Amino acid sequence: MEILSTNKAHGGIQGVYRHASEATGTDMTFSVFVPGHVEGARLPVVWYLSGLTCSHANVTEKGEYRAACAEHGLIFVAPDTSPRGEHVPDDESYDFGQGAGFYVDATEDPWAEHYRMRSYIEDELPRLIAAEFPKADLTRESIMGHSMGGHGALTIGLRNPDRFKAVSAFAPIAAPLDCPWGEKALSGYLGEDRAAWRGYDACALIADGHTVSELLVDQGTDDEFLEEQLRPELLEQACAEAGIALTLNRREGYDHSYYFIASFMADHLAWHGERLAEDAAASDKGA
Amino acid sequence: MEILSTNKAHGGIQGVYRHASEATGTDMTFSVFVPGHVEGARLPVVWYLSGLTCSHANVTEKGEYRAACAEHGLIFVAPDTSPRGEHVPDDESYDFGQGAGFYVDATEDPWAEHYRMRSYIEDELPRLIAAEFPKADLTRESIMGHSMGGHGALTIGLRNPDRFKAVSAFAPIAAPLDCPWGEKALSGYLGEDRAAWRGYDACALIADGHTVSELLVDQGTDDEFLEEQLRPELLEQACAEAGIALTLNRREGYDHSYYFIASFMADHLAWHGERLAEDAAASDKGA
Repeated sequence: MEILSTNKAHGGIQGVYRHASEATGTDMTFSVFVPGHVEGARLPVVWYLSGLTCSHANVTEKGEYRAACAEHGLIFVAPDTSPRGEHVPDDESYDFGQGAGFYVDATEDPWAEHYRMRSYIEDELPRLIAAEFPKADLTRESIMGHSMGGHGALTIGLRNPDRFKAVSAFAPIAAPLDCPWGEKALSGYLGEDRAAWRGYDACALIADGHTVSELLVDQGTDDEFLEEQLRPELLEQACAEAGIALTLNRREGYDHSYYFIASFMADHLAWHGERLAEDAAASDKGA
Repeated sequence: MEILSTNKAHGGIQGVYRHASEATGTDMTFSVFVPGHVEGARLPVVWYLSGLTCSHANVTEKGEYRAACAEHGLIFVAPDTSPRGEHVPDDESYDFGQGAGFYVDATEDPWAEHYRMRSYIEDELPRLIAAEFPKADLTRESIMGHSMGGHGALTIGLRNPDRFKAVSAFAPIAAPLDCPWGEKALSGYLGEDRAAWRGYDACALIADGHTVSELLVDQGTDDEFLEEQLRPELLEQACAEAGIALTLNRREGYDHSYYFIASFMADHLAWHGERLAEDAAASDKGA
């Protein structure tokens, strides 16, 4: 792992790192914030998955998460959204190919070789973080994301209910099977058999029996993608039918931008921090 | 005035605007954050002046000021750092010409025609803000800035002690007469007569009798520009000799970046908010 930059921020260290990924067969860049902490402390890890066109840099610069992570003692990891490079297949549109990995393991050519973001995020990067950041307590993880990354957080959380102590999203693509972004990405990466898509759709996963106890979602009412692409009402319906306690905050006048995300980041991190700390307390009692 | 964008953020509106400036003879772009407020409220205005190479956009995206402005009820205005455009004289270096106006009214050709940032910031933009933002209470102003913009805030504050209720800076260029950045900019814009530079140097202004009751400065100890360009010890000495209450916080391990600024932005805005509110209370009593 190569250190690209470190900066002291809010009493901790904001770093940007690069490594050669086995999963994607490319170099991958990600950022990690480690807040100030007492000697010997081990801290829970919040995964933040970004949206279409983003890299690690967008949330790192605009996400306004460091003050809350410092307050609650949370390590914050922000991966890239796809493999990148001149040798990596791409598409000229913004919503497919580089910057648009959709958190799937692609099965269709020419995408299958490098577009393995599910394996990268679920398996490889956590192992790297555990190895390279000794302060990270990977027994206490939570996951969140925005838009395509909200889809990533919800689906990864639903597929791994025992692993993540909290799952939340900002303006997630709630039902990729039923929106243009999702249909384009899933057909492109996975082929036309829609049965293969169901593991990458929060609503389908819930309908198929995957469950978590609770979810937190914030959604701006002036989000330009709300009705056609995001469709939180389908998640609301799926959660109601499955008995999942969904808190869906409709935020009047907010759009799809980082101004929206930054406005509610501290709320989400406080919610994650409570659940990660409660779990720690429970573990302590059990020990 | 043209609206380039508005986004709801932290309960208020973050806007970016453009207007044709008389002072610079160019279009100028700036950002304004107006926090949520009760009907009929009028809010104090904090001016934020940016550093070399920056436009309004850097602090608007990375400054993490909106939560604190919402908490304290502060309007936050971030101007550009120079005139810009193909017809505007420029220099290939990063520390002179476009993006490096140094908050002076240039007297040397070819700069004198457009590089009139002192008049723009002190006179023209406040009049525009007063006219276009009816919520802005221009009887309650404060000023802050970073690096070259810290120099701007200190010098504008010292030249207008009755106008600004609070003056603070992050890693300011404290003594332009005695550092390479300052010597290059002031000789280029104002010519070789160093007497003409003294109105644009915080330490010289203090030595020449300009004063304010107090100043707040934060400075990272790992700032790469600290010893050669910033020289806060000269400001410390000038304030000590003049009896100005300078709070100079040396922040261990912090650098010159927006990670540093964002880490202490909330502290500075709380300090400004207190002074702008105290003044309001005093005015109320007097009325």
